[in-house]
Amino acid sequence: MSGEAGKSRECLALDVGLLAPGRAGSAAERTTSDRAFLQAMLDAEAALTRAQAAMGMAPASAADAVTEAAADAARFDARDIAVRARGGGNPVIPLVADLTAAVPEEAAPYVHRGATSQDILDTATMLVAARTLDVLLPDLARTERELARLARAHRDTAMPGRTLTQHAAPTTFGLKAAGWRSLVLDARDRVAGVRGALPAQWGGAVGTLAVMAAYGGVGAGGVGAPGTGPGPAPGLDLVAVYARELGLAEPTLPWHTLRTPVADLATALAFTAGALGKLAADVLTLSRTEIGELSEGTGGTSSAMPHKANPVRATLIAAAAHRAPALAATLLASLTAADERPAGAWHAEWEPLRDLLRLAGGAARDAAELCAGLQVHPEAMRANLDLTGGLIVSERLVVELTPALGRARAAALVASAARRARERDVSLADALTAELAAQPPSPGPPPHLNLTKAALTALTDPTHWTGHAGALTDRALRRH
Amino acid sequence: MSGEAGKSRECLALDVGLLAPGRAGSAAERTTSDRAFLQAMLDAEAALTRAQAAMGMAPASAADAVTEAAADAARFDARDIAVRARGGGNPVIPLVADLTAAVPEEAAPYVHRGATSQDILDTATMLVAARTLDVLLPDLARTERELARLARAHRDTAMPGRTLTQHAAPTTFGLKAAGWRSLVLDARDRVAGVRGALPAQWGGAVGTLAVMAAYGGVGAGGVGAPGTGPGPAPGLDLVAVYARELGLAEPTLPWHTLRTPVADLATALAFTAGALGKLAADVLTLSRTEIGELSEGTGGTSSAMPHKANPVRATLIAAAAHRAPALAATLLASLTAADERPAGAWHAEWEPLRDLLRLAGGAARDAAELCAGLQVHPEAMRANLDLTGGLIVSERLVVELTPALGRARAAALVASAARRARERDVSLADALTAELAAQPPSPGPPPHLNLTKAALTALTDPTHWTGHAGALTDRALRRH
Amino acid sequence: MSGEAGKSRECLALDVGLLAPGRAGSAAERTTSDRAFLQAMLDAEAALTRAQAAMGMAPASAADAVTEAAADAARFDARDIAVRARGGGNPVIPLVADLTAAVPEEAAPYVHRGATSQDILDTATMLVAARTLDVLLPDLARTERELARLARAHRDTAMPGRTLTQHAAPTTFGLKAAGWRSLVLDARDRVAGVRGALPAQWGGAVGTLAVMAAYGGVGAGGVGAPGTGPGPAPGLDLVAVYARELGLAEPTLPWHTLRTPVADLATALAFTAGALGKLAADVLTLSRTEIGELSEGTGGTSSAMPHKANPVRATLIAAAAHRAPALAATLLASLTAADERPAGAWHAEWEPLRDLLRLAGGAARDAAELCAGLQVHPEAMRANLDLTGGLIVSERLVVELTPALGRARAAALVASAARRARERDVSLADALTAELAAQPPSPGPPPHLNLTKAALTALTDPTHWTGHAGALTDRALRRH
Amino acid sequence: MSGEAGKSRECLALDVGLLAPGRAGSAAERTTSDRAFLQAMLDAEAALTRAQAAMGMAPASAADAVTEAAADAARFDARDIAVRARGGGNPVIPLVADLTAAVPEEAAPYVHRGATSQDILDTATMLVAARTLDVLLPDLARTERELARLARAHRDTAMPGRTLTQHAAPTTFGLKAAGWRSLVLDARDRVAGVRGALPAQWGGAVGTLAVMAAYGGVGAGGVGAPGTGPGPAPGLDLVAVYARELGLAEPTLPWHTLRTPVADLATALAFTAGALGKLAADVLTLSRTEIGELSEGTGGTSSAMPHKANPVRATLIAAAAHRAPALAATLLASLTAADERPAGAWHAEWEPLRDLLRLAGGAARDAAELCAGLQVHPEAMRANLDLTGGLIVSERLVVELTPALGRARAAALVASAARRARERDVSLADALTAELAAQPPSPGPPPHLNLTKAALTALTDPTHWTGHAGALTDRALRRH
Repeated sequence: MSGEAGKSRECLALDVGLLAPGRAGSAAERTTSDRAFLQAMLDAEAALTRAQAAMGMAPASAADAVTEAAADAARFDARDIAVRARGGGNPVIPLVADLTAAVPEEAAPYVHRGATSQDILDTATMLVAARTLDVLLPDLARTERELARLARAHRDTAMPGRTLTQHAAPTTFGLKAAGWRSLVLDARDRVAGVRGALPAQWGGAVGTLAVMAAYGGVGAGGVGAPGTGPGPAPGLDLVAVYARELGLAEPTLPWHTLRTPVADLATALAFTAGALGKLAADVLTLSRTEIGELSEGTGGTSSAMPHKANPVRATLIAAAAHRAPALAATLLASLTAADERPAGAWHAEWEPLRDLLRLAGGAARDAAELCAGLQVHPEAMRANLDLTGGLIVSERLVVELTPALGRARAAALVASAARRARERDVSLADALTAELAAQPPSPGPPPHLNLTKAALTALTDPTHWTGHAGALTDRALRRH
Repeated sequence: MSGEAGKSRECLALDVGLLAPGRAGSAAERTTSDRAFLQAMLDAEAALTRAQAAMGMAPASAADAVTEAAADAARFDARDIAVRARGGGNPVIPLVADLTAAVPEEAAPYVHRGATSQDILDTATMLVAARTLDVLLPDLARTERELARLARAHRDTAMPGRTLTQHAAPTTFGLKAAGWRSLVLDARDRVAGVRGALPAQWGGAVGTLAVMAAYGGVGAGGVGAPGTGPGPAPGLDLVAVYARELGLAEPTLPWHTLRTPVADLATALAFTAGALGKLAADVLTLSRTEIGELSEGTGGTSSAMPHKANPVRATLIAAAAHRAPALAATLLASLTAADERPAGAWHAEWEPLRDLLRLAGGAARDAAELCAGLQVHPEAMRANLDLTGGLIVSERLVVELTPALGRARAAALVASAARRARERDVSLADALTAELAAQPPSPGPPPHLNLTKAALTALTDPTHWTGHAGALTDRALRRH
Repeated sequence: MSGEAGKSRECLALDVGLLAPGRAGSAAERTTSDRAFLQAMLDAEAALTRAQAAMGMAPASAADAVTEAAADAARFDARDIAVRARGGGNPVIPLVADLTAAVPEEAAPYVHRGATSQDILDTATMLVAARTLDVLLPDLARTERELARLARAHRDTAMPGRTLTQHAAPTTFGLKAAGWRSLVLDARDRVAGVRGALPAQWGGAVGTLAVMAAYGGVGAGGVGAPGTGPGPAPGLDLVAVYARELGLAEPTLPWHTLRTPVADLATALAFTAGALGKLAADVLTLSRTEIGELSEGTGGTSSAMPHKANPVRATLIAAAAHRAPALAATLLASLTAADERPAGAWHAEWEPLRDLLRLAGGAARDAAELCAGLQVHPEAMRANLDLTGGLIVSERLVVELTPALGRARAAALVASAARRARERDVSLADALTAELAAQPPSPGPPPHLNLTKAALTALTDPTHWTGHAGALTDRALRRH
Repeated sequence: MSGEAGKSRECLALDVGLLAPGRAGSAAERTTSDRAFLQAMLDAEAALTRAQAAMGMAPASAADAVTEAAADAARFDARDIAVRARGGGNPVIPLVADLTAAVPEEAAPYVHRGATSQDILDTATMLVAARTLDVLLPDLARTERELARLARAHRDTAMPGRTLTQHAAPTTFGLKAAGWRSLVLDARDRVAGVRGALPAQWGGAVGTLAVMAAYGGVGAGGVGAPGTGPGPAPGLDLVAVYARELGLAEPTLPWHTLRTPVADLATALAFTAGALGKLAADVLTLSRTEIGELSEGTGGTSSAMPHKANPVRATLIAAAAHRAPALAATLLASLTAADERPAGAWHAEWEPLRDLLRLAGGAARDAAELCAGLQVHPEAMRANLDLTGGLIVSERLVVELTPALGRARAAALVASAARRARERDVSLADALTAELAAQPPSPGPPPHLNLTKAALTALTDPTHWTGHAGALTDRALRRH
């Protein structure tokens, strides 16, 4: 084995996704690899020179040369750059050296001209983010479509609504799926909003574009005070051209220490992971052996227990949701970026932001797969609705008995019947009949209750107490 | 002292802001007090009954009675409710009992009818948020105006730009203030966006509005399957009326476990604290005894050191920025809300959300005060620019020498001069002259450098190397 | 109503626990109130003067006077101090003014002498922490005892073990309770370790004890360079006396910016909340309507649903566990405390540390109550073990069949039977019999399986497959 | 290029440290690579079989065969395992398949026997942690030694003490370095404590060691109820042997969902990052261009500014300190691990724990380098002490004037002189002389002040007001 291959193998082992089944093999993993970041940095460098050429500040040949040299990140040794990055604290410094060495001598002065490391790394991060959101959004769209399908199909499938872990009152699976979908749409709206606003970065050493201002003023000739005059500011046009070259937005100001784009990206991604996390949490609960209302299409296997079909997709989404908020917190904290470049807060952004892109990207893939294959078991939902012997509609009974008994007496009666039903293990209908019989005769005319056994059985049928679930589902599905 | 007063005094001592100078006495503290939450819950209860009356589902007299009973939270014993809240895990249950006891008997059945505790508490939280954002936004506006004033006034005031703690290249205080302002505008936009979308909550036990659906179907008469038909859903109109009564947005779906409003609020508030934290971080640095470029108008005092004038406003803002991200993380994590009401994740929202409202509200007050009184010391900025003997414009020298020497040689020459200047403690102009003299004669025609001492001095004048700072400031100020 | 009472009422409403049922009325709430903090600050001030008197640096009468004036925090107006704290950014500055005004003129110079605000506030925080841990530890001890009782009582009560939400293999409730208890003991050990090490704080303006060094050197007379000599350092003895007066540990160094005590406290408290959170999470799951293996002794009520018995204690513990990690993160971040007193990171500690004390203290109370009243339903555990028709012991079948079939064939056979059992809804014993019958005759001698129906039924009895659960429970219970 | 090499190259690019200069090339990076995790999993598998062989439950040849097959992780395709891990949600399942395929057929039944995926992955994580702490602790020791050297060398080097960014009173660099060292020792104690307690994991499917109990009871013969009897529990001895084979501690209970080891590790590592973060924060501040009291031995370079010498080591440490608390929060949250294996919380641990190991390990390397090369500039410290014209010792003046004037008058006089000094830009000595002259004659005998200009100058000499800094430094250095 050659030394090169050996080195590759060793490097290879640093992180190949072994601890990250949630994103292993996903599109978001590819778009966020070190190779992808390196390519994005190269793309930024090339656009920098091309923009100068477009504005007549550099020869077209230099732009061509840099573009050509920057075309394929595979030509650069990412690991070597990573290790050399320790010198100045970021990978752009060694990359610029390598890129400069890779262009003809006459193009060398135009490499990285007027830029600082942060311009390149920030721009590259936005490029990587753009490319990752572009693979994330379709997975959200797939997820949303599957959920719309489920919500429509199960618009009237009754199931227990659960609060504080206990059966509370009936709901429908359609409404639940519509709720999940509305969260996915919320995530999509936040991600899409951020996607459209991702800005390029170019400010030079301290955000004044001083070098570019100097070249912009070169026509005025000689040694002067470039760029400080009240006239037009060609450097600003340059940034617009640069941003356009990259397909990114033009920022109003260099944002070296105005970290709105990073904070917005972080919160949109954490929102996405959390939104999908709600879906996963519900699937996990409803897949429990005792509940069995849902199951993943292709459950995961177990090394020890041949019978198990684990809800693996939901598990991996839940893991992403578990991690995302803390990563977002780190990036929100980076808003307090000191000076014109902070010593640490900026460097602390890089990995957490990538982690969030991967977690959200991986979770979206898993959610799309999960929803496409999700198996719904209406018969289990129906059976579970009966578990409390009608107690799940106790609220309804209070409503129905109130006209005759007044609310207070109705509530007391139902509570008492509920207790009896629980203690004696009888149906609520039976318990209520017994309680009514045991009631002292009330003063005044007897209530016109006409509660036959059949009427009581109908009243305690949980599928008849789903309220506006259908109408709400319909309304939610009208959102696109 | 009477027992009542004694009890008040004891309760009083739980939290009166002793550990919270950042919000003590602020408007945001008032709008987020337990009293304010109690009032907001009462407002929600009253609106609930009024909406039913408006739709013909309750007598107008009941609506009047509940509205009257709910008019002043001071009539209720908040501490007693707090302690009784342990029984069911939330304060709405005892509050409903007390409110029911406070209305005439015939109105009692209409108190809280069709609602669940979470409807009231979530709605109250949105009301409290709305009222707090309404006092926060004006403080952001004041901050923004002061910063605009500073940016305009100091558009051309040169100061050192600092990266990784070191002087890097000159910038202007105008650009710095414009940057702070742009973050404040970003915060305002996020807060205002959230403010407009704060939704009311009403879903009943599990989000199906089952009780309201039953009453909505009451015209059809008798015991049936209320609300499940495909017809109109009067319960949904009811929610619209309820939301309108409260000045909140009507939600598409009940959001008991679709926590987008909470997540959005949390991230907008944490963004605000972080955005103001950047301003505070810079003020703290620039106020350092050795730097002295800024000082707070009325510095804080010290118990031990009579000479000290501490940047207290900036300190308190920094403390808020330090805390906000973790609180936002807790609220982002609440997105994974299980079932139709989670056992814990919901309860975990209440205090962190209030904390964020208070931190952001307090920080905005402090920022407005800070910016109104901020003292700028251009002479200190100018003196600091000279601290490195011209090294701060070394980048410029490379630019200017490149046409004659080529970039590589120019960069080497300047680096060498910089080293000489640092080691021998001479000005960069002098060091450069010495380096140029020591250069071996280059092949070919001698470079036309014409670098007289005067030219070099002009070249190394840091106030002549602020690039597009002015143009960027102008552009940023055009945003409103 | 008098103005004073009116003011009290208004202050009262800031935070009386309305949003905090987890700690309302708890001992930890009392020990962490603003009143309690104020008293602890006063205790620190009094100890400061007493220590000086003990060392002959202040008159005994001054120590008596300060001690007397500081004896009851109720004499001071906490709200007024809170609002005035905005001036210097902490409450000690106004408190010292009020305390000085409360002592006779001749004692005034000895109030707060040689101390800085942080000395008092940090010491007070440690006192509050000590007093809170002293009420927290007994609740952990109660919890531990109840869990030991449960573990012993249910040493051999079989129940389903669940992994990734699915039945995996049987375990016992005794082992589960023993596991919860071991976490409680881990929490106790961490809290007790921290409790013993809580240090007093006294360093003066920048941690050099300069003023005390000056008085220590006063015997040498005149204006000199006090305290810088190589001789004994009476100031250090003074700190030892001060710490002893307060029942706190003597620190090696002033820890104004060496925040180990705060970080340790934060992590011990977050650990405690998390450890109890595991117990709560399991109780919540096992209380689910469909599972029903546990129920809280006195379940919480619901405003809308008379039948519900919510696991409220577990819910409130879960909420505490949800919040604690982020608060600990804020306090861990405070380790990077700049200079001799950071501008913000210190101020950011106060409320989160109190929050953690309250959350852990409240959760410990709830855990003790929960465990004392926890109802165990072995019959539900037994019924649930049968839910999978024997699949829960599929692992055992592989073990038992391996000698005859080899592991690979045994595993395949069981997996196939499991599939059959699931698909056809038959017991695993029956499915296995069918699978065995359908097996092609293997080459060589037939396996001596002797699997009669009775043997298979015994083999698939889940209560016979609890492994070392009993022995592990016994071992865990030997830890004290 | 062959396909295999191509695949390696692509995998290689996932994460080779490009975004992580803080750990690139460090020992901690090597010990935490995916390769290292894979090796640790293989080590765990081999120890599992060896332990069974040692107890007579497996043939020695099987133990040898598994040990041999597991000897080199390079023989396994980590990327392929990573991608296949998606099936069951963790990498152990495919690894066991590959390891089983790599041993002779007769050894196959003994691979992974009696274990579950979590046993292997948890054990591997503890092994990786042990190996990483073993390279981290020496770096902490180096750091500590360098700091002891600096503290001794600068025991009496006066410098400004700073609080809330302002000069407060003098301190010494010796005391500062001693403080940093005490934090490093605190970190070492916490890390070493955790290191000694890192436990192996072996519990089988649900933590009952059921399969091992079955084999342990095999001597009793036949199909029975293995392991439930009250007799000895050989499975527990087996765990002891297994732990000994791996050099890890034997746990009292399987800790699948009792996550104390993970929480302890996380908090010790976050503490370490924070402790080093304090050192970094101070170095960054004291390296500021205007302050210049410290500089890194070999400052980092800048791509744009040839003169810059950035504090890169401190910057990278600061970045680690910025990230660590949030990661610890995620791991503290994992304490609430549901059931016998949580669906998500466990999976969420793997990457954050590795991140913390890398961040702390990298920061320790950087800290050791930083301290070894740190340049101290006492002359800058001295010059800075004079910046306030004596105001930095205003506290001392109050002390010295109190005997003559009473404290209140002394404090007022000094405050007034401080104001005069600041406003008129004169020395405090001069201002004080002027203030004294302007004092109205006090009633009673004139104070015996005898404050000659010389005495005043001596009194305002900041190097004479460092209190017990020396004695504290000595005491702190006695800790080892």
